[in-house]
Amino acid sequence: MPDLPKKISIVEEGVREGCQIQDPPIPTAQKLELIAALSETGISKIQVASMVNAQRVPGWADADEVLERLPAAPPGVSYSAVWLNDKGFDRAWRHRDKLAFDGAISAPASEAFLLRNQNRTLAQNFAEQRERIAAYKARGLAVDRVGVMAAFGCNFEGEIPVPRVIEIIAQGMDLAAETDCDISSIVLADTMAWATPFSAKRMIDAVRSRWPEVEISLHLHDTRGMGIANAFAAMEMGVSRFDASLAGLGGCPFAGHKGAAGNVCTEDLVFLLESMGLDTGIDMPKLLDARRFLAEGLPGEPVYGYVPDAGVPKNYRRAVEQVRA
Amino acid sequence: MPDLPKKISIVEEGVREGCQIQDPPIPTAQKLELIAALSETGISKIQVASMVNAQRVPGWADADEVLERLPAAPPGVSYSAVWLNDKGFDRAWRHRDKLAFDGAISAPASEAFLLRNQNRTLAQNFAEQRERIAAYKARGLAVDRVGVMAAFGCNFEGEIPVPRVIEIIAQGMDLAAETDCDISSIVLADTMAWATPFSAKRMIDAVRSRWPEVEISLHLHDTRGMGIANAFAAMEMGVSRFDASLAGLGGCPFAGHKGAAGNVCTEDLVFLLESMGLDTGIDMPKLLDARRFLAEGLPGEPVYGYVPDAGVPKNYRRAVEQVRA
Repeated sequence: MPDLPKKISIVEEGVREGCQIQDPPIPTAQKLELIAALSETGISKIQVASMVNAQRVPGWADADEVLERLPAAPPGVSYSAVWLNDKGFDRAWRHRDKLAFDGAISAPASEAFLLRNQNRTLAQNFAEQRERIAAYKARGLAVDRVGVMAAFGCNFEGEIPVPRVIEIIAQGMDLAAETDCDISSIVLADTMAWATPFSAKRMIDAVRSRWPEVEISLHLHDTRGMGIANAFAAMEMGVSRFDASLAGLGGCPFAGHKGAAGNVCTEDLVFLLESMGLDTGIDMPKLLDARRFLAEGLPGEPVYGYVPDAGVPKNYRRAVEQVRA
Repeated sequence: MPDLPKKISIVEEGVREGCQIQDPPIPTAQKLELIAALSETGISKIQVASMVNAQRVPGWADADEVLERLPAAPPGVSYSAVWLNDKGFDRAWRHRDKLAFDGAISAPASEAFLLRNQNRTLAQNFAEQRERIAAYKARGLAVDRVGVMAAFGCNFEGEIPVPRVIEIIAQGMDLAAETDCDISSIVLADTMAWATPFSAKRMIDAVRSRWPEVEISLHLHDTRGMGIANAFAAMEMGVSRFDASLAGLGGCPFAGHKGAAGNVCTEDLVFLLESMGLDTGIDMPKLLDARRFLAEGLPGEPVYGYVPDAGVPKNYRRAVEQVRA
């Protein structure tokens, strides 16, 4: 039996990921109500906005308005935003009374995807990262993360070999060392849903062997139905931090998917974790309330996940208590 | 890294499971065409009919007609049927020129489910199994399997503890020993989708420890979205035989499910396996042809699985070759 982590941290990305692909855009008021519903569930980290180019991502044209109207996060909950360049960071920073910040170095594993997603080359990316580190430091923010987009494969480049991912992380780590940043976390993002449980384990094993002191977290998509299995495989490797998305909403608009592109579904992931006796701190009935609110607000849009329709087994909480005992 | 099995055997149950819950019933001709399409995919074992009470399961009222009109299985493919009592077995036996037969001892882990599904108690079940063994033997069939329905949990009884499952298998094994049957396989059926990857591993570990020489195979449902993760967890334990269902069709009509009750989806399972370099012998494009045929014949019915919409990654076969090399 594997040595599973005791406690798991989930970052809820449904609002940020979901709103970036909904067309027509989700109205501002509905975004705010959804954030409020999620803030009641016990999820401690919620991405609430994406500070990106409104012309490329119309769903987040109202990001500033969302943050202006957003009440302060309740105790125990922190809100964050996503940005892809200095301009986005500057916009987010104006709302720093409501947002938690940390600095990250972006080290994408696929240049083909980087060109489509951010219209820059890898060399341009690292130059930009250098500027961004300076901007973070100027504001007193620690840069403690290296994030790897397309860490398992790319719809344009194909499978990304393990040595390539190690090399790109090493470039990020070198940049961190040069600029006196202390990296405590590496985020492996399966942006285009190429990971399988086996390739996830192999990649995690390679990254951990090279940087044993750094925590690994995963951003998984469920486009090919492997999301929950990948999360389990990663847990078996001791990974204890996952991004997930209410109703499996989301997907990068520039990933070239044919079908559903959603993130791994928070409801199913919480069920997986709690049924195995792991503590997410998340209240399933309240999570299902948030989902219902979302589904009612998006009639006709597909929502993903199985547990909400099937219901939890009769002895769900009891089973959890038994496993924990 | 786990020591995964090299080759995996899949039993396709979509026709049998799917047709038992479709209302109105799928027409006979369509069943036959679906079996023909599946027979082209490389799947070697296909359940083609359920010899059950037509009043309780109207979807299989035409089981005899299906078997009469069914052409002989093509080379490398074998067809089988399912029955729950001697009467059903007798009906199947009349089609023995087209069906592969083996005898199994049914040892259900939940009496509450057994009462609903087959209207008998556990004591009645074992008396009936004794008669059935005699009937198998009278026809020269080996009885080599013990099948455990509701092996992980029951919507009526709750979670089934490991010792209870071991006890019920032991009763089946005792009956086999008494009647000179040599059991080579134990089928653990997650009839009501209670298994999680962790509980699946725990159960497989306990069963294997007790009967180390017996092969374990799994019948998984995906009702709570854990099917693929459970299959992966079981593979890590060396399990190499799985039931699955095209488009995730199926579900027991007496299981008391609220939502989708489907089996683990063949398309996604094959993707999981082949992407990890395991050999299923199944041709994905032909499998997707069979699915399209099915979906067109059942307009408006939900079909499950992610890979068919998302498509396989660009280098799917190449990735498989790489992993195998």
